[in-house]
Amino acid sequence: MGNSFGRKFRITTFGESHGRGLGVTIDGCPAGVPVDEEYIQAELDRRRPGQSKITTQRKEGDKVEILSGVFEGVSTGTPIGMIIMNQDQKSKDYSHIAKSFRPSHADYTYHEKYGQRDYRGGGRSSARETAARVAAGAIAKRMLAHFDIKVQAYVSQVGPLKLEKSYQELDLSQIESNIVRCPDQQVAEQMIALIDDTRLKRDTIGGVVSAVVSGAPVGLGEPVFDRLHAELGKAMLSINAAKGFEYGSGFDGVALYGSQHNDAFVTDKDGGIHTKTNRSGGIQGGISNGEDIYFRVAFKPVATIMMDQESIDVDGNAVTVSGKGRHDPCVVSRAVPIVESMAALVIADHLLLQQSTRLDQITL
Amino acid sequence: MGNSFGRKFRITTFGESHGRGLGVTIDGCPAGVPVDEEYIQAELDRRRPGQSKITTQRKEGDKVEILSGVFEGVSTGTPIGMIIMNQDQKSKDYSHIAKSFRPSHADYTYHEKYGQRDYRGGGRSSARETAARVAAGAIAKRMLAHFDIKVQAYVSQVGPLKLEKSYQELDLSQIESNIVRCPDQQVAEQMIALIDDTRLKRDTIGGVVSAVVSGAPVGLGEPVFDRLHAELGKAMLSINAAKGFEYGSGFDGVALYGSQHNDAFVTDKDGGIHTKTNRSGGIQGGISNGEDIYFRVAFKPVATIMMDQESIDVDGNAVTVSGKGRHDPCVVSRAVPIVESMAALVIADHLLLQQSTRLDQITL
Amino acid sequence: MGNSFGRKFRITTFGESHGRGLGVTIDGCPAGVPVDEEYIQAELDRRRPGQSKITTQRKEGDKVEILSGVFEGVSTGTPIGMIIMNQDQKSKDYSHIAKSFRPSHADYTYHEKYGQRDYRGGGRSSARETAARVAAGAIAKRMLAHFDIKVQAYVSQVGPLKLEKSYQELDLSQIESNIVRCPDQQVAEQMIALIDDTRLKRDTIGGVVSAVVSGAPVGLGEPVFDRLHAELGKAMLSINAAKGFEYGSGFDGVALYGSQHNDAFVTDKDGGIHTKTNRSGGIQGGISNGEDIYFRVAFKPVATIMMDQESIDVDGNAVTVSGKGRHDPCVVSRAVPIVESMAALVIADHLLLQQSTRLDQITL
Amino acid sequence: MGNSFGRKFRITTFGESHGRGLGVTIDGCPAGVPVDEEYIQAELDRRRPGQSKITTQRKEGDKVEILSGVFEGVSTGTPIGMIIMNQDQKSKDYSHIAKSFRPSHADYTYHEKYGQRDYRGGGRSSARETAARVAAGAIAKRMLAHFDIKVQAYVSQVGPLKLEKSYQELDLSQIESNIVRCPDQQVAEQMIALIDDTRLKRDTIGGVVSAVVSGAPVGLGEPVFDRLHAELGKAMLSINAAKGFEYGSGFDGVALYGSQHNDAFVTDKDGGIHTKTNRSGGIQGGISNGEDIYFRVAFKPVATIMMDQESIDVDGNAVTVSGKGRHDPCVVSRAVPIVESMAALVIADHLLLQQSTRLDQITL
Repeated sequence: MGNSFGRKFRITTFGESHGRGLGVTIDGCPAGVPVDEEYIQAELDRRRPGQSKITTQRKEGDKVEILSGVFEGVSTGTPIGMIIMNQDQKSKDYSHIAKSFRPSHADYTYHEKYGQRDYRGGGRSSARETAARVAAGAIAKRMLAHFDIKVQAYVSQVGPLKLEKSYQELDLSQIESNIVRCPDQQVAEQMIALIDDTRLKRDTIGGVVSAVVSGAPVGLGEPVFDRLHAELGKAMLSINAAKGFEYGSGFDGVALYGSQHNDAFVTDKDGGIHTKTNRSGGIQGGISNGEDIYFRVAFKPVATIMMDQESIDVDGNAVTVSGKGRHDPCVVSRAVPIVESMAALVIADHLLLQQSTRLDQITL
Repeated sequence: MGNSFGRKFRITTFGESHGRGLGVTIDGCPAGVPVDEEYIQAELDRRRPGQSKITTQRKEGDKVEILSGVFEGVSTGTPIGMIIMNQDQKSKDYSHIAKSFRPSHADYTYHEKYGQRDYRGGGRSSARETAARVAAGAIAKRMLAHFDIKVQAYVSQVGPLKLEKSYQELDLSQIESNIVRCPDQQVAEQMIALIDDTRLKRDTIGGVVSAVVSGAPVGLGEPVFDRLHAELGKAMLSINAAKGFEYGSGFDGVALYGSQHNDAFVTDKDGGIHTKTNRSGGIQGGISNGEDIYFRVAFKPVATIMMDQESIDVDGNAVTVSGKGRHDPCVVSRAVPIVESMAALVIADHLLLQQSTRLDQITL
Repeated sequence: MGNSFGRKFRITTFGESHGRGLGVTIDGCPAGVPVDEEYIQAELDRRRPGQSKITTQRKEGDKVEILSGVFEGVSTGTPIGMIIMNQDQKSKDYSHIAKSFRPSHADYTYHEKYGQRDYRGGGRSSARETAARVAAGAIAKRMLAHFDIKVQAYVSQVGPLKLEKSYQELDLSQIESNIVRCPDQQVAEQMIALIDDTRLKRDTIGGVVSAVVSGAPVGLGEPVFDRLHAELGKAMLSINAAKGFEYGSGFDGVALYGSQHNDAFVTDKDGGIHTKTNRSGGIQGGISNGEDIYFRVAFKPVATIMMDQESIDVDGNAVTVSGKGRHDPCVVSRAVPIVESMAALVIADHLLLQQSTRLDQITL
Repeated sequence: MGNSFGRKFRITTFGESHGRGLGVTIDGCPAGVPVDEEYIQAELDRRRPGQSKITTQRKEGDKVEILSGVFEGVSTGTPIGMIIMNQDQKSKDYSHIAKSFRPSHADYTYHEKYGQRDYRGGGRSSARETAARVAAGAIAKRMLAHFDIKVQAYVSQVGPLKLEKSYQELDLSQIESNIVRCPDQQVAEQMIALIDDTRLKRDTIGGVVSAVVSGAPVGLGEPVFDRLHAELGKAMLSINAAKGFEYGSGFDGVALYGSQHNDAFVTDKDGGIHTKTNRSGGIQGGISNGEDIYFRVAFKPVATIMMDQESIDVDGNAVTVSGKGRHDPCVVSRAVPIVESMAALVIADHLLLQQSTRLDQITL
């Protein structure tokens, strides 16, 4: 269980790292969304391994194929099925991990939960699964673009290197201008240097991805449990290696007094209602208030390091495991499109959920 | 929508702050769980307003009544319906908020989303709704106790006052020994003083609640979307005033190298598998690994302050709003049983979900 | 599990026949639906025991109380909680069934499934639970009335007595003009006589309820699994004692050739599209086509008869069970409002589901 | 929406008649079920067009490919993704239906619901989608076989030709011995002759499929809404062309008295509890009672006939439509494996749902 996300714009993913292929079904995409494989492919390419020197050098083309739900360039309202066949699923030698539990990986927990596991490349626990999410997220983004809603994420921290500027102080058009996807060029260079250095040390390091949703209307979110930020939080925490989520003022807001923290309402000259500040992060009472929605996601250092580590095998015997092959020294640059995709899926879902909220807005 | 939580141990809550009553239905509680109103009431009393000088002095008896699903002291497997009637729903004078949007409250978003709202005491957006969660959580706790699984939460930060000790360094049996529910007496006294001082300033302040789940078996969590920590995260973020969630090493773990962060597996003398360290927070790949599960939840300062604030009304006119009546200067001490309840609900749900995972463990 | 119905207009019921009370929560009722206890009560009175000589003479006032989700006479968009307290839950003597399995009742299956049961009056398996459905159905009807959608059911068969006229040939305004709720007075009298005779024989008898939904727009139904008739079928089969469901030409249509069965499309003078005949029952491909939706539901004879029956007890010993108290000789007249309620819930749910189907009809 | 079925053994299908391909994802299949493409293929071949002279002569290889969720011959507990690529999706000339609404087809309703449609071969409304169900159903059957639960369906009526024998009087091992899948050879021959004659008349005809589930344990079904027969009913009614469902005594049972209809409980010599008769159809109170579960499904005559029919086009103009190509004169023989598949999916789902019902049967 647990392989579906969303209620109205609902995705279901399948696929292992080294099986025949991955895929995703979207059930509930409205009819009329322009869908083309080129756009989806472009998004997949942002997540693809081997895209830069600071990502894994593994080769996966990640070629998406739409099997259904699209006719003459637009969605038809029927489920959209997409697959990404694995190009190189040939069994390399996995004997080194077939029976070993790698530290801080999911080997042990999958083995115990299911009584067995597809150990090749981590199987289902591999972040390769997120390719399916990005394919679905691309379609959600297309739907949101129709309403001028935009989702942008960027790297705001790598190890101890923290981007101190808020998103308002940054030029988000610069996100894609460097390989680490940090809109501040100077900090980006430092981040890249740190990741490169970490790679040379055969180690890995953590980071933070920040995201902003602009253009979302007032009213998204379904209290009391499906508050918009609770859904965003779940979405982000469902991404491999995620360890924390905060929105608006987040953990730092804790230290403030209410009189400092509250966002005052103001009416602008066009009669629109806004808040002077936005410590609420665009969400009040679990419902979007029309301001920018922003949040941060913490990612731990990747568990696969190119060093020997002491561990145990399925029989409890001591073994030494060692990272082989090509792995990411830091996931955050590739996590950017994944964070965006999950955010787009949440917003799209809630936009659809919101359609039936008021009797006076329901149409036959 | 959005008023149900859980898949197998599924709760649905209803009720407004000043309507006739609140309630909750549990659908999926297994038959055979000992259920008594006394235990539920005791948990409700931990959340109750007026329990100490640092909580709101409002008077609500929060008397729970079980209407169904329990026979001769145990759950029958049919839905458990519980209600808590509001004792004092008489319409006090709410004219000061009927048409005004209080800063950082849900007044504006509810008004826009639903086209109207029950403004009395915040209506559905009031934290009063969490009483229903605590009633349900008490039954989840009872079920978990059958398996020696324990959920404990405590206050670890109030404003800038931070408990630096980890949960392993604390004596969790002391949580209830002071009114702020911080197991370190010295820090607790400082926290109480700060909250009291904040109250006298007619202001409010934020805080952090930490929680530990001990005794959970290996195998809970349903990747890829319903990872155990993603579900816990959503549960916590669905609590009023929550702004952030992190588990295990959390946001701080970001700065570490993989070689520092990884938890080494070891076999203990009984052949049990454990990890030497627990930066994973008891969850690997989204599945519990048998270690303690621990996490932190950030709560913002309560929006209702006893000061005049500039705001606007439903027609966009400038108004002054001012907190009236009795409110919490800091929610964290009352949030402790709510955090525990939501955690117990998540663990109970996943324990039930886990029952059908392996063919060799399925029985007719 | 299994105590919720619907996706967007979603109800959850709780309560046993002789517990403290019953209830229902509606999550997803749009804001703005006029809701008053009087109308709900009137619907409950149509289902109430003791309403006529051909129903059980048990006394239950079935007084509904709305606890939440309604403010100043209209729904607010938050969950609507309603309860019906059991007036006479005092334990009469149930020793005759506490350990016996009554033939064709749910005693045995509940006992085996849950390992125990609340045997008083059948507990959760009693049709008393349907009072909660009727309360929720009344609100669904109110919502549908806003769109001039009407649900009407009537008794079309009692035992072998079958109303041969189709719904188009009947005057449905006459349904409530007799106690059996058959719009043909002559047949109604025969039915009443048969039920009365059956009651005197201390026996019970089956029947069929027919229903018509008029005014439903084109487009309701969510293929491939949630076809409108599949949802109606499930809804009807979930009612106590239901044994079969058919819509449109139903089982009889099987014997026809396609050339006889197909419904020809025609354009009326206003440009509206209709079908000349309606063997499709208003549903094509699982989606409503704008014609009347009609279907039939078979109800078996009630299992409780006022005669001695051989059976066994929980230990497998032979026992004699005998119906005691006051029971319905035939359920169909009281099933009419239940069928209507379930149909209204399905239509309301699908009307809301339909709101997010087309990009060009989605609004911010 | 509406393209998923089941809660724990949950399938999601996608694919149009003439798109690139079809597929299905199973989320929740327990780890450890033996899965091989050969078995699935054999089941697909029972549904395949062109298998006999009484089915459509269209050529579709229906070659299934498993993409994920299976490792070394058994399910791993992760989602099983399967695809069936369409071999001949080249656009034949569909101009005759691109703008016309074929009588009693889904052309009109899809067009209105979604504002557009993939008209090639009926698109998503084509019964081709059921190939995906059969692939999933094959895995459900494999899981049930582990518990000696068997699902068998057969043709019991074609047009007016009705098999009068009950399933107990038939030799179900003979179902596959003739092309119409009726276990009574004599009646089968009559049915085949009638279908063949209908085909020559360029017409179509309806029929009934009966099904029996043997070996199901006591306890399956989740009242009050998800009663086992309600779920079976929905499953069956979701199959293309289905018009009715009845279980046990069904519509005929209506005419009986309770004293005739009730099934007496008896204890067999091994202490097992059974019922003397089985008018309950193996389900009491919505829960399986250990007896054979049996039911009947009505299928209307296929709407596509090889004759000219008057209809209208999307602009409301009168047009003549005429069936072209190769179509089934009667669907029931090919519906047999579909009915079995849907029944297997329901039983598998409820077997998994049942695992968490009793505290004393829950394991860590």
